[in-house]
Amino acid sequence: MLDKEIMEKLAALVGQDNILTGKMDRLTYSYDATADLPRQMPDVVVLPTDSNMVQAIVRFARKHRIPIYPRGAGTNLSGGTVPIKQGIVLSFQKMNRILDVDPANLTAVVQPGVVIGALNAAVAPHGLIYPPDPGTVATATMGGSAAENSGGLRGLKYGVTKNYIMGMEVVLANGDKVRFGGKTVKNVTAYDFATLFIGSEGTLGIITELTAKLIPAPRFRRTMTGAFSTLADAGNAVAGIIAAQVIPATLEIMDRMTIQTVENFAHIGLPTEAEALLLIEVDGMSADLVQAETEAVIQVVRDNHGDLCTAETDQERDQLWTARRNALPALASLNNTVILEDATVPRSRITDMLVACEQIGKKYNLALGTFGHAGDGNLHPTILCDKHNKDEMARMHQAVDEIFQVALEFGGTLSGEHGIGMAKMRYLGNELGESGLNLIRTIKESLDPDYLLNPGKMVPAHEV
Amino acid sequence: MLDKEIMEKLAALVGQDNILTGKMDRLTYSYDATADLPRQMPDVVVLPTDSNMVQAIVRFARKHRIPIYPRGAGTNLSGGTVPIKQGIVLSFQKMNRILDVDPANLTAVVQPGVVIGALNAAVAPHGLIYPPDPGTVATATMGGSAAENSGGLRGLKYGVTKNYIMGMEVVLANGDKVRFGGKTVKNVTAYDFATLFIGSEGTLGIITELTAKLIPAPRFRRTMTGAFSTLADAGNAVAGIIAAQVIPATLEIMDRMTIQTVENFAHIGLPTEAEALLLIEVDGMSADLVQAETEAVIQVVRDNHGDLCTAETDQERDQLWTARRNALPALASLNNTVILEDATVPRSRITDMLVACEQIGKKYNLALGTFGHAGDGNLHPTILCDKHNKDEMARMHQAVDEIFQVALEFGGTLSGEHGIGMAKMRYLGNELGESGLNLIRTIKESLDPDYLLNPGKMVPAHEV
Repeated sequence: MLDKEIMEKLAALVGQDNILTGKMDRLTYSYDATADLPRQMPDVVVLPTDSNMVQAIVRFARKHRIPIYPRGAGTNLSGGTVPIKQGIVLSFQKMNRILDVDPANLTAVVQPGVVIGALNAAVAPHGLIYPPDPGTVATATMGGSAAENSGGLRGLKYGVTKNYIMGMEVVLANGDKVRFGGKTVKNVTAYDFATLFIGSEGTLGIITELTAKLIPAPRFRRTMTGAFSTLADAGNAVAGIIAAQVIPATLEIMDRMTIQTVENFAHIGLPTEAEALLLIEVDGMSADLVQAETEAVIQVVRDNHGDLCTAETDQERDQLWTARRNALPALASLNNTVILEDATVPRSRITDMLVACEQIGKKYNLALGTFGHAGDGNLHPTILCDKHNKDEMARMHQAVDEIFQVALEFGGTLSGEHGIGMAKMRYLGNELGESGLNLIRTIKESLDPDYLLNPGKMVPAHEV
Repeated sequence: MLDKEIMEKLAALVGQDNILTGKMDRLTYSYDATADLPRQMPDVVVLPTDSNMVQAIVRFARKHRIPIYPRGAGTNLSGGTVPIKQGIVLSFQKMNRILDVDPANLTAVVQPGVVIGALNAAVAPHGLIYPPDPGTVATATMGGSAAENSGGLRGLKYGVTKNYIMGMEVVLANGDKVRFGGKTVKNVTAYDFATLFIGSEGTLGIITELTAKLIPAPRFRRTMTGAFSTLADAGNAVAGIIAAQVIPATLEIMDRMTIQTVENFAHIGLPTEAEALLLIEVDGMSADLVQAETEAVIQVVRDNHGDLCTAETDQERDQLWTARRNALPALASLNNTVILEDATVPRSRITDMLVACEQIGKKYNLALGTFGHAGDGNLHPTILCDKHNKDEMARMHQAVDEIFQVALEFGGTLSGEHGIGMAKMRYLGNELGESGLNLIRTIKESLDPDYLLNPGKMVPAHEV
């Protein structure tokens, strides 16, 4: 706990309006959306109003060796924002202005606290979109999603956050403020700092401004589902769609347990007897192309013994999307602890991975459902358990270990979009080896030698 | 010059077949495609055959404090491969195997010495392309273009090299070999190392393997030119095309001097009276969409008083592309020194930048032509001079200084695609400030504290 004098100095530095010290406030900032992780109240929450204030806070924290935990909306799923070593939570809710929308350059400049959905609402009148589309788009912030390199439902065709951040202002742990990148489409001046800070989970610097790339909104779309009686058929359909050179905007999968749970939750007529359901959306600038892609998808689904259903109205489409977006809350409603994993494999191993997850669930006698971004190979095996059941929690941990082991054996990675945070640090060496761990530490310690920024996350290290 | 004992040890380490020490050989590696830079012969050229040999060379060089200069085909345009501090040139011509083409995952795995064009030839039978398309695609290597983050003619729609490298194996200056990324479409495991090494100009590590992303080849395309009687009309047409929500695969510009020079060189009937020529190609998966985009482009060109010409046959298309690709060799044929710059501005400032370049050419009484990627804001102002004319060379240097000053004033950057290398180090502080320079040095020194890798490039620093 910071002593009274330090707290008074900090309050004087940022102003009483921008600091929260009450227990209820601090409790609110003691966790994020990740299950099964320790919680920790920060000593204090600061709400900076501009980048100069961020700089002043960093310098203050550095002088007094206080950890800083930057935080957007706290929606992240790997413990990235838990202030595990106390100190200061830096919450960006007051830095939430869209500074510039520039249709001629297809860019927007935003403060880190801007909600992704708010940016999309602001650029929609220009016929533009900001494509990265995490499930939490209605609450997650631009700063947080940049720090986590968020993916989402449209990643297959449109890419992830790092493909849409062109420039940044960052406050470094040494107190320097640096700007790089900007509105130019191409930029190879010095190292690609913007991409280094994207996905760095707040461990290298604090993002205080972002220049985002926008694209014209697709004018046409078609949404379909394919219900399959085996996981293999569904996996082959995913491969077949790509082999037909159709890149859908969205290509999602739910297994039987997820389908049944969502249907019980939302009552929208999902095929509860199916082993797997694909949710497919093609979009584009041409009605003809979208029609041609729709027909190609239909053919592939049928060739793989799938039962096809097309959304004929916006209402039907919305219902399907609601089903998909409800997968996590529906599963979460079944028990008090929902372990949402993020194992990712090359697209060609999707079927193998789905089968492996099912088998692991059975092996450890767990309620395990899998859904996710089939087109990306980015699956979310989800385990429901009772945190008061020690035996079940132990089996869950074994199952999770095995899921990651299998994902790596299939040429996959520990995290497709949720990040490493606190949740996956212990697996990092399995993927990157000792030389990879050293590389992580080298980069971290070059920019933040005192482990001031988001300590306890991503970097399994020599911490102070 | 390395002493005899060191040379003998190095020869024993890599084998006599993999080492070049003759003067003619070393002379061949003393320069690259950049004009007006010092040349320097290396002490020795080593041609590694695998990544273990690269690792052994790095460890040897580290022990004896010998600089290492990694080199692809030497096509780069910022002095990136000149062995300015002598030492070892590491030339990847023997590591030129395509290790894997995987249509199901839309990936290819290659050694760094693979020529970009060779990769495209290998994936074409699968209906796939590797989109990055620098002018030197027929000779430039995958390793070199990754190290330089090459752009090219298709950057506007398809992006640049960093958008297409999914994984890497790298040998670090400390001798560690690290692999990261791979065939998964999404990957947020630890920092985004692949993108850190892309565009690092060989100063952070030596790339020994690359996993590249492929995409389905577009099935339809239309190529057009628009000739304009003012630079402003041409610039407005560029803006108008984007405003019409058409993102062409290519949107190139040539000014009057470039048009006339290319026409004198290639005799293909270019409009030599025009002030500016746009070369526009739209492509896609749908004949209808390509037709609709073609019509939109035609309308914009006419609205801006342009004279439109459409390539009706493949031969006519090839001629137009030959014209564009001849811009540099044609200009280069006019005098003994061709200074090819790479100033890049936000797309909305293209007209301003074209006019500024023309004025700067006049102000300093120089033969200055500008061509480049108008859709990207990535222009190549090109100055022709006689290296024996000291006064002209001095005026050229003043003009170049002024071009970069103006580009930065317009919100642009020092380099869109050629890199910093030796050529632009002195300008870096103007764009990034002192805190930015410190950030560059911090990253460099964390991975290569002894300035072993490509010293004298990009990092304006405390060198040993």
